Amino acid sequence: MRTQVCIIGGGPSGLLLSQLLDRAGIDTVVLERRSRDYVLSRIRAGVLESGTVGMLEKAGIATRAHAEGLPHTGTYLAVQNTGFRIDFDALIGKQVLVYGQTEVTRDLYDAREKADGIVVHELDGVELHDLDTDAPHVTYVKDGTTHRIDCDYVAGCDGFHGPSRQAIPKDVLTEYERVYPFGWLGVMADLPPVSHELIYANHPRGFALASMRSPTRSRYYIQAPVDDPLDKWTDDAFWDEFRRRLPHDSAEALITGPTIEKSIAPLRSYVADPMKWGRLFLVGDAAHIVPPTGAKGLNLAVSDVHYLFEALTSHYRDGDDHGIETYSQTALKRVWNAIRFSWWFTTTMHRFPGQEPFDQAIQDSELRNLQTSVNAQTVFSENYVGMPY
Amino acid sequence: MRTQVCIIGGGPSGLLLSQLLDRAGIDTVVLERRSRDYVLSRIRAGVLESGTVGMLEKAGIATRAHAEGLPHTGTYLAVQNTGFRIDFDALIGKQVLVYGQTEVTRDLYDAREKADGIVVHELDGVELHDLDTDAPHVTYVKDGTTHRIDCDYVAGCDGFHGPSRQAIPKDVLTEYERVYPFGWLGVMADLPPVSHELIYANHPRGFALASMRSPTRSRYYIQAPVDDPLDKWTDDAFWDEFRRRLPHDSAEALITGPTIEKSIAPLRSYVADPMKWGRLFLVGDAAHIVPPTGAKGLNLAVSDVHYLFEALTSHYRDGDDHGIETYSQTALKRVWNAIRFSWWFTTTMHRFPGQEPFDQAIQDSELRNLQTSVNAQTVFSENYVGMPY
Repeated sequence: MRTQVCIIGGGPSGLLLSQLLDRAGIDTVVLERRSRDYVLSRIRAGVLESGTVGMLEKAGIATRAHAEGLPHTGTYLAVQNTGFRIDFDALIGKQVLVYGQTEVTRDLYDAREKADGIVVHELDGVELHDLDTDAPHVTYVKDGTTHRIDCDYVAGCDGFHGPSRQAIPKDVLTEYERVYPFGWLGVMADLPPVSHELIYANHPRGFALASMRSPTRSRYYIQAPVDDPLDKWTDDAFWDEFRRRLPHDSAEALITGPTIEKSIAPLRSYVADPMKWGRLFLVGDAAHIVPPTGAKGLNLAVSDVHYLFEALTSHYRDGDDHGIETYSQTALKRVWNAIRFSWWFTTTMHRFPGQEPFDQAIQDSELRNLQTSVNAQTVFSENYVGMPY
Repeated sequence: MRTQVCIIGGGPSGLLLSQLLDRAGIDTVVLERRSRDYVLSRIRAGVLESGTVGMLEKAGIATRAHAEGLPHTGTYLAVQNTGFRIDFDALIGKQVLVYGQTEVTRDLYDAREKADGIVVHELDGVELHDLDTDAPHVTYVKDGTTHRIDCDYVAGCDGFHGPSRQAIPKDVLTEYERVYPFGWLGVMADLPPVSHELIYANHPRGFALASMRSPTRSRYYIQAPVDDPLDKWTDDAFWDEFRRRLPHDSAEALITGPTIEKSIAPLRSYVADPMKWGRLFLVGDAAHIVPPTGAKGLNLAVSDVHYLFEALTSHYRDGDDHGIETYSQTALKRVWNAIRFSWWFTTTMHRFPGQEPFDQAIQDSELRNLQTSVNAQTVFSENYVGMPY
């Protein structure tokens, strides 16, 4: 088989790139190791930057997001059980949209299906070949047979553990990493959210986040040791701990009940540089990981898709390779900004093992400053809502 | 002897407090361990926040500062030999004044002398007594004789190593501290400054700062190990290293020559809480230390003087003790803001031993963001020029 752009990975970034390129008349094939149902069962973040929503519009798949998503014009931060609000809309005239990544992915699958886009599922042994030549190709095994796709370019949208980044020679790649000494214990529950906007809480017992998926589905998190056995965290134990970390008024308003999902995830920051090698482009988690504080993961992947889409259309439409040649630098500039914001927000909101009183006082001062300085709130807003592309 | 406020320490904060109280009709005695000449020989910082200049005006001693000081409407930051400017005046309509702390102290001594203010010099064995009663007193030894001063209040303006803070019982005091793993090698030279405004440079070889005291006297610093032997740093060695860390255009413009002072100073952040115990108030370095990055030391001492002066005049004039009772909380709120800014600026500008590539990339991203985000520059400016009292 031959295509113009072979896309490895059928998550939201691979599907979005495929959808955009298709609408621009550029051929793609998407290779996804898992089944569509499996991909749609993965629980992921759900806060879309305004630029991300713009990209969904551009791809023609924003109808349901606009109908069902919850626009948030601000967010709450809390320190020691007292909350305050940061009003994005008043400060910078922008907002975010709460709409689950799973829903975005579903909308993309529906759109690809409608357009007869090729998405190959349930395959194995993906290998990337001749990336440093003008004629790269990708092979994979499906139903016992090895298939080959010849293409102009390969887009590695296959996540942190996928084969794309590993195809770049070790001596070419610089890796930046920070592992945080704690995890997030998250639950999903079919209960009305405690707040109509998110609450990020810094508390002496550890961080907590009150988030949501819809007006009837809550998504709540607490900072917890990453190796805590899950059976230690009964629903009651979770609710008790969660409530103690919330602002007092939210703690009183909290409605509890059975949870439908519970898991502990590690937190880390990671960046691979460069994001382009030969005919291969890395996109999203394949090139960078952020801790969930600030919800940048999907948004950064979409930002990469934006730059790569612009680069590929310039190449095919105008014969202009400038965007392709500078993809890595351009994408990384915005990546590092979000990496820094996520690192700062994580560092400011969590208790660290062995943290000294000085560090805790710095956290307090940072949050007090955010509470009182309009300028500090503006900087927070422009980063939270997302820097322009 | 009896006075209303016994001020321990004849540096700028003690003298300024004495001068302000005197003009408000409140009696003071200032006790200074060293001679006036010794105090005036100490080399200290020289960047005055706009609020600090306002306090000098209020004390009636700003004439020479306005005549000889250098107003700076902005500052330069640099990363990897490329500088950019942050324009305080354009962003927030404020500026700083470059005028040496030594000159401020000289102006204050002249004013105290003119007003026949009592400043006792060259004494020893200062002890604070009965601070937790309504009748505190201070004793000291001069020329072999023990003297006693009875007073209403004691102002501890006697620096980090003075007796005032030590007079607070250990179990009452919480101390916050951060020691930085490097020092500043500073030189003074009678040479025209390389830039008409300050340059704070982040460089892979370490931090550098180009500052000044006047149009003919330069004050330059480089990050260096705090235990480096001074004789390793010949003038030539200093100029070579300093030049390598400057922006390229400044490196070319740099005029070198013999230095007239050279020393290495450690960097630390320190806060004592509370700043009031019984009838004792801590002011300036007696309660808190900042690293010199951002030049907050003198400015924070003046901020404390502001709050204490308001508290004492409310007490004596209106019989209102609210300011006295809340002095510690009020002063500390502004102190922590400056402690945090100085810590952030220090952390962002220096190379740390064992620093990982991730941390260096965060520094780079932070500075690139400052270079490009007007909002980030505004936050920098309001902190550098000084938060309002």
